[in-house]
Amino acid sequence: MPSIFTKIINGEIPCYKVAEDDEFFAFLDINPNAAGHTLCVPKKEVNKILDLDEASYMGLMAFSRKVGKAIEATIPCERVGMTVIGLEVPHVHVHLIPLHSMKNATFQHKEKLEPKEFEEIASKIRAALK
Amino acid sequence: MPSIFTKIINGEIPCYKVAEDDEFFAFLDINPNAAGHTLCVPKKEVNKILDLDEASYMGLMAFSRKVGKAIEATIPCERVGMTVIGLEVPHVHVHLIPLHSMKNATFQHKEKLEPKEFEEIASKIRAALK
Repeated sequence: MPSIFTKIINGEIPCYKVAEDDEFFAFLDINPNAAGHTLCVPKKEVNKILDLDEASYMGLMAFSRKVGKAIEATIPCERVGMTVIGLEVPHVHVHLIPLHSMKNATFQHKEKLEPKEFEEIASKIRAALK
Repeated sequence: MPSIFTKIINGEIPCYKVAEDDEFFAFLDINPNAAGHTLCVPKKEVNKILDLDEASYMGLMAFSRKVGKAIEATIPCERVGMTVIGLEVPHVHVHLIPLHSMKNATFQHKEKLEPKEFEEIASKIRAALK
């Protein structure tokens, strides 16, 4: 069965899209640790980050760097953190999280945002990527 | 003033060393989220991950992948997670954390280990890297 991220990539589940190229896809986490929390995902469905072949892993990291810099240019924060856990969705994803304090890095605190706010954030990050 | 990680790299502060090459250094976190929790650090002292130049960033990610695979081969766990936060020590470091459950990813739970256990773990990861 395709993962929830594959369904998002294929447009079967809507998302606030941030970036896409041939191999990778980025969209806002809808249960964010902080406003601007973004997920970067390889289109190829692989469960664990260390099981990606070296070229895909390096490609995902280069893609995440680019998206992370656009987030940092868009969202006022102390810095952008990167986290790969993967215990919930078995499809590699890099969390890019605007950090204001340690609270945003623990995955215990969640931010509530309206659809309009998600749309505005995604649109600003997309603009910063251009 | 050199960071605590620069002092570790220079041997002024002892550590349980896991790996080293010309540009990068890996050692066990002495306040680990789980046994085997390792930090990968560029020798060049840069504060934020996204401020590394592209070559250093990509080099650090390739180095972390190699060390992560050795940890995964050594420490029984569900998977190895990767986290970059950086709010405490202003010198880029990638946390490689053997994850058993979400508890190991939140930085709220810490594992107590004896020096002998740290030594054994570091020695096993070093052996897996060969």
